[in-house]
Amino acid sequence: MNIDMIRAAADRIKGHARRTPILTSPFLDDIAGRRVFLKAECLQHTGSFKFRGGWSAVSSLTDNALKTGVIAFSSGNHAQGVALAAREHGAPAVIVMPADAPTVKIENTRALGAEVILYDRANEDRDEIGAKLSAERGLTLIKPFDEPQVIAGQGTTGLEIAEDMNALGVSHADVMVCCGGGGLTSGIALALAADAPGLRVRPAEPEEFDDVTRSLASGKIERNSRLDGSLCDAIITPQPGDLTFPIMQAHCGPGVVVSEDECLRAMALAFERLRIVVEPGGAAALAAALFHPDAFTGDAVIAVATGGNVDATVFARALETMK
Amino acid sequence: MNIDMIRAAADRIKGHARRTPILTSPFLDDIAGRRVFLKAECLQHTGSFKFRGGWSAVSSLTDNALKTGVIAFSSGNHAQGVALAAREHGAPAVIVMPADAPTVKIENTRALGAEVILYDRANEDRDEIGAKLSAERGLTLIKPFDEPQVIAGQGTTGLEIAEDMNALGVSHADVMVCCGGGGLTSGIALALAADAPGLRVRPAEPEEFDDVTRSLASGKIERNSRLDGSLCDAIITPQPGDLTFPIMQAHCGPGVVVSEDECLRAMALAFERLRIVVEPGGAAALAAALFHPDAFTGDAVIAVATGGNVDATVFARALETMK
Repeated sequence: MNIDMIRAAADRIKGHARRTPILTSPFLDDIAGRRVFLKAECLQHTGSFKFRGGWSAVSSLTDNALKTGVIAFSSGNHAQGVALAAREHGAPAVIVMPADAPTVKIENTRALGAEVILYDRANEDRDEIGAKLSAERGLTLIKPFDEPQVIAGQGTTGLEIAEDMNALGVSHADVMVCCGGGGLTSGIALALAADAPGLRVRPAEPEEFDDVTRSLASGKIERNSRLDGSLCDAIITPQPGDLTFPIMQAHCGPGVVVSEDECLRAMALAFERLRIVVEPGGAAALAAALFHPDAFTGDAVIAVATGGNVDATVFARALETMK
Repeated sequence: MNIDMIRAAADRIKGHARRTPILTSPFLDDIAGRRVFLKAECLQHTGSFKFRGGWSAVSSLTDNALKTGVIAFSSGNHAQGVALAAREHGAPAVIVMPADAPTVKIENTRALGAEVILYDRANEDRDEIGAKLSAERGLTLIKPFDEPQVIAGQGTTGLEIAEDMNALGVSHADVMVCCGGGGLTSGIALALAADAPGLRVRPAEPEEFDDVTRSLASGKIERNSRLDGSLCDAIITPQPGDLTFPIMQAHCGPGVVVSEDECLRAMALAFERLRIVVEPGGAAALAAALFHPDAFTGDAVIAVATGGNVDATVFARALETMK
C-alpha cells in the first residue's frame, strides 16, 4: 500500500468519479471559531466516497474476473459504490447488506442492478456470508476497507484535498474524516503525507462506536462492544482493519468522539449553511470541527462529509434540532 | 449588453464566486426519460446565483461609490448576494426586503453586515422605496435583474454550462432556468448564444406567476396579477425587465409552467438523488425537466437549480411528498 497505488487509482478514476467541491460558509466559521473547509463527498456518485474505492477495485480486475462478477458486504454506501462501478464495467454484482440498513440504501442498490442478499447484523457474521458466496460462485470479494485497491481509491479524495487546500493557501490544518474501518481515513492520510504533509488526518467517530480512536490511543486494535443501534450506521464497523490500522498509526492524530445529537445538529447546519444533504455518520467530522473547538489548534480545519444517503424521517429529525 | 460584458464579469468573479458542479443521477434520468444535468447554483456562495450578479455589479463601482455604499431591494437571494459582495469590497449595504420573506433570508442578510429595511410586499412599491433611500443617502442602487452588470454576472453561469456541457459531449439540449425578472435567464441565453449555440435557454415558472412565459408567447411584456402567496417567492417579480425581455425574445424557447407541488417533489428528488438542498423557486427548472417530458425533444436536458435558501418547515413539506 503506497502513494503510487493512489496515483494510479486517480488515473483510472478520472472522468468517472466526480471531483467534489470544497464548501465554506462564514456562519460555520463563526461557530467553529476558525475557518471550516468541507469536502463534500456526499455529492459523489451514489452519494458517498465509496464509489471511489468501488471503481478503483473493479477497474483493477481482469476481464475474466469482471465477467464472473463481484461481491461486497456493506451497510449501504459501499454497496451502492460497488454496484454502480460494477454496472459501468458490465460486471454482475452481489451485495450482502444488513437487514436494518436504511430502506433507501437497499432499494438504491437493487436499482443499480445488483443482487441484494440481506442478513441480521446482530446475529450473523457478514464476513462469513461473503466468503461463502464468494467461494460458491467464484465472485471476487471487494472488501469495504481492508483492501489495497479500495484504500487507493478512497485516497484519491486526499489528492484532491491536497491540491485544493494548496490553491487556497492552507498548508497546516487538521483534516477530520468520518471513520468506520479506516479505508478513507488511511487513504487520505497516505495521500496527504505525500502531497501536503502539513495537513494531518484525524478520525471522527460516534460515541460508543469509537474503536479507531481507542485503538490509536492504546496502540493496539480495539473492538466496539456492539454494532447496532447507532444513527451513524454508515461508519459502524467491528474494529479497524489490519491494513488500515498501521497506516493510521503512522500518520493520524488522535480521534475526536462526537454525540449523535451533535451529528444531527451538524446535518442541520450543513442543510442551512451549505445546502447539502449529509447522513448522520457522514456528519461526524463536521460535528467535531464545529462543536469540539478545543480539540484543535490553528486557524483552519478541514472536514470530510463522507455521505448523504439518509432516509427522509432521519433528516427531518436533524431539521428538528433547529427549532 | 453583450457577451464581452459577461466575459469581463467572469474575469472579475474568478476566485470569488464558486464554480458550481453539474450533478447527475441515473434515477433522475429514468424519471425524465432522458439524461438530466443539473447546474447546482444552490451551492454558490450565499446559496444562490445572485452572488454572481452582486459581485459583478459591486466590483464594477468606483472607489468613491464603494465608500458611500450600495442599496438593493430583494425577496432574499439578491439581498444576500449583494450583502456579501459589498462586505468583501468593504462597502456599506442597505437591503430593502419584503416583510414576508423567509426568516432565514432576512437573518442571513443582517448577519452578512447589511442594514435591512422591511416593507409590505402587497401594499408598498419596492422600487419607490429603493429609489427614495438611494436618493437620500447617495447609495448606488443595484437592481435585482434589469441592470447590465447584474445580467453580466448571472451570465457567467452560462459560460460554465457551455464549457462543462462541451466537455461532456452534449451540444444540443434545452437549458431550463428558474425565471423571475429574467436576469439569470437572459444572461445565460447570451452566454450560450456565443459559446454553445446548440443549447437553448427556456424559462421555468410557477403556475399563476408565469409572466415571462406569457410575455414570450404574446410578444409583449405581460404582468402577474398578484405578487404574494407563492411558495416560489424567490422567483416572483411583477413582469420581465425592459432589458431582459428583448434578450429573452431573441434567444429563448417557450417557457414551461410548473405547479408548486411539482416543485416540492423536485426538491425531494434533489434531496434523495443529488443530496442537495433546493428552495421551491429554485426547483422549478428541475420540476419542468422531470415532470414535463413532453415539453422536450432530444436525449438530454439541463436544469439550473438557482437557489437553496429554504426554511426547515418548507423543506419538511417537500420531504412529506416522498411518503
